[in-house]
Amino acid sequence: MRIAEIRLTPVAIPDKPLLNCKGVHQPYALRTIIEVVCDDGTLGLGESYGSSKALAGLRKAAPALVGLDPFHLHELHARVLAALPEGGGINAKSAVADHRLTDVVTSAFEVPLMDIQGKLLGRPLYDLLGGKVRDRVPFAAYLFYKFAGHIGEAPDEWGEVMTPQAMVEEARRFVGLYGFGSLKLKGGVLEPALEIETMRRLREAFPSHPLRIDPNGGWTVETAIHIARSLEGVLEYLEDPVIGMDAMAEVAAATSLPLATNMIVLQFDQIAEAVRKGAVRIVLSDHHYWGGLRASTHLAKVCETLGLGVSMHSNSHLGITLAAMTHVAAATPNLSYACDTHYPWTGVDIIEGGPLAFDRGTLAPPPGPGLGVGLDRARLAEFAALYDTCGVSERDDTAYMKQFDPGYERRVPRW
Amino acid sequence: MRIAEIRLTPVAIPDKPLLNCKGVHQPYALRTIIEVVCDDGTLGLGESYGSSKALAGLRKAAPALVGLDPFHLHELHARVLAALPEGGGINAKSAVADHRLTDVVTSAFEVPLMDIQGKLLGRPLYDLLGGKVRDRVPFAAYLFYKFAGHIGEAPDEWGEVMTPQAMVEEARRFVGLYGFGSLKLKGGVLEPALEIETMRRLREAFPSHPLRIDPNGGWTVETAIHIARSLEGVLEYLEDPVIGMDAMAEVAAATSLPLATNMIVLQFDQIAEAVRKGAVRIVLSDHHYWGGLRASTHLAKVCETLGLGVSMHSNSHLGITLAAMTHVAAATPNLSYACDTHYPWTGVDIIEGGPLAFDRGTLAPPPGPGLGVGLDRARLAEFAALYDTCGVSERDDTAYMKQFDPGYERRVPRW
Ligand SMILES: [Mg+2]
Ligand SMILES: [Mg+2]
Repeated sequence: MRIAEIRLTPVAIPDKPLLNCKGVHQPYALRTIIEVVCDDGTLGLGESYGSSKALAGLRKAAPALVGLDPFHLHELHARVLAALPEGGGINAKSAVADHRLTDVVTSAFEVPLMDIQGKLLGRPLYDLLGGKVRDRVPFAAYLFYKFAGHIGEAPDEWGEVMTPQAMVEEARRFVGLYGFGSLKLKGGVLEPALEIETMRRLREAFPSHPLRIDPNGGWTVETAIHIARSLEGVLEYLEDPVIGMDAMAEVAAATSLPLATNMIVLQFDQIAEAVRKGAVRIVLSDHHYWGGLRASTHLAKVCETLGLGVSMHSNSHLGITLAAMTHVAAATPNLSYACDTHYPWTGVDIIEGGPLAFDRGTLAPPPGPGLGVGLDRARLAEFAALYDTCGVSERDDTAYMKQFDPGYERRVPRW
Repeated sequence: MRIAEIRLTPVAIPDKPLLNCKGVHQPYALRTIIEVVCDDGTLGLGESYGSSKALAGLRKAAPALVGLDPFHLHELHARVLAALPEGGGINAKSAVADHRLTDVVTSAFEVPLMDIQGKLLGRPLYDLLGGKVRDRVPFAAYLFYKFAGHIGEAPDEWGEVMTPQAMVEEARRFVGLYGFGSLKLKGGVLEPALEIETMRRLREAFPSHPLRIDPNGGWTVETAIHIARSLEGVLEYLEDPVIGMDAMAEVAAATSLPLATNMIVLQFDQIAEAVRKGAVRIVLSDHHYWGGLRASTHLAKVCETLGLGVSMHSNSHLGITLAAMTHVAAATPNLSYACDTHYPWTGVDIIEGGPLAFDRGTLAPPPGPGLGVGLDRARLAEFAALYDTCGVSERDDTAYMKQFDPGYERRVPRW
């Protein structure tokens, strides 16, 4: 059994004007939908980034994968490495932390191959990862400060959220709609005093919900230490308060709060240094750049071995990604935090039956076989057409922010 | 699909009087053959230790596994933990380093479950581990000093090997018969000067064969440092020269030779300390106690992540174990040393077609499905009968040595 054909479809999906320390989400988020077809007709689905560098890498590697046995994951990686000898990252701007293109491309194809394996077995994908250890996977509400609406548009249904009190209302609505039992705030947006106040108000409003804040490295070490100390006893963890291994280690040494990261530990070969320096206590897993689902189980075991916690990172995504996250989370014993997800913010999907529905903040892995999701080709065509016409081909939160505020400058750290 | 029946058959196989720092191999080595039968009749094979503690643990856990789905490896581990709440080790004597019974029992059943998975898929087992990265797996000659024959018996075909020159002859014969491209000496037997001389003579006789020596912790730190420095440039690694994490770290700091171990790192939760102390640079993997084949791939990734090398440990074993070792070795990219094996010393087997045959020191994983080996039930019955009649129910190399030399005492370290 061999791979006969690979189809890559970039899509644009409507997003909300969500704020972070580098700007604001554009009206459209970009993804690439991956279809791997075997010579017996078995179809595997995947989803990855839609940035032009990621898409170019996927397109360059895809022809090299025709003829590959879908069980040969080591060879998948070898073929990707050979097809992309120039390496590099996936982000257009030289970012503080970037993802290795070959990791991203390997990951992108590993998921459809695992989907194919599950379909051949007639079993849910999690059974290929040792079986599930939990029936339902908890997700966290992903709270964002936001503008009322996109430029030239009426306010969206969430309206403006730019104060601590408005954030409590956003959280109430999230919890009411989806039942989330953990709350994560995207920080680094308002001045530190207001973000501290936001977390404290969330604590008052949700006394038993685990809370986190993630400013994407938007704070100086001094600011981060001040905020960390202010929120000890309030947060379950503090995510990427500052940029860089040494700065993280400095903050970690100054607070009892555990630090989590999806910015300084993006590859296996960054883990040892982070541990040696005491820079992080929780690694955020993400199958889109850690090598796929099988590699994510390796990462979890590495973290267990080193006494690190494991949580799960998210970008704006669709249901194929959500299904894959849920399968691997269900099969990971030491993934002991609710997973991040941007999923509710987009609210659309290209999978059959429309968006997957959270119940009490949790999701059961689709029962399979494989990932357990199929393509709604009409919706796929619709969002593929949107990709062609929407005018966004690269994520640039800073450029879009300048349309709201011409004086805005990208500054990391900001506060 | 569920497990319907489990059959455990202890067997005894003829062994040679091979020496180590604690004594000499008895006339019989003990193993347990494991058959897991699913409700559709699919049969999975496994092989584990034959010591009474291991066998008792296997027998106690087996009933708790009836009804288990053969893909649910996390649940396998959970059921074993629940069935063996008293825990403990597998060796009769309180050993310097022992293996956790629950790890051993989980491992013992994981292999037949993986065999079943491969059979259901109609694929070799290595395809369940990401596919093979090498067509043939290199093994090392396992050289032992030895007595001419067992007590009351004529000399065996290998005769006495108690001098450096005789060891060179043993090595020549091993290399001639099997083509091994690496040589490992079981040390800690002769006085240090003679073992150093042995390694130097092996180097002269086999100028391009990687060499190792493993005294099973039989040396003091001072002796070990002396030997290590004497053999820098001669060995590829030095295995367990001394007992204990701190002693290993002391030796490691005093020599450029990398230290390997199957005695101080037996479980995932021992790795971090070993790395922190710089006690080892190579971990010897062994699916019989690391949790099975899937867990062995986790171990390899942990080692890669921490900059540790991976080699493979062996006890006296039969072909089911050899097949399993070969499948996981074929699917482990960073297993970059020839694997240990005692297999040629016993020369018998309970698998169909008789012993697997090395070619130029290597073995291709049996092509499957699953492990790719079947049971020769007549031979299995023969060695099961031998277990019942041979008079050995526990390995005790020291007690047997006292039959050769009444004044012999167990001493670790010996030199
Ligand atoms: Mg983050
Ligand atoms: Mg050893």
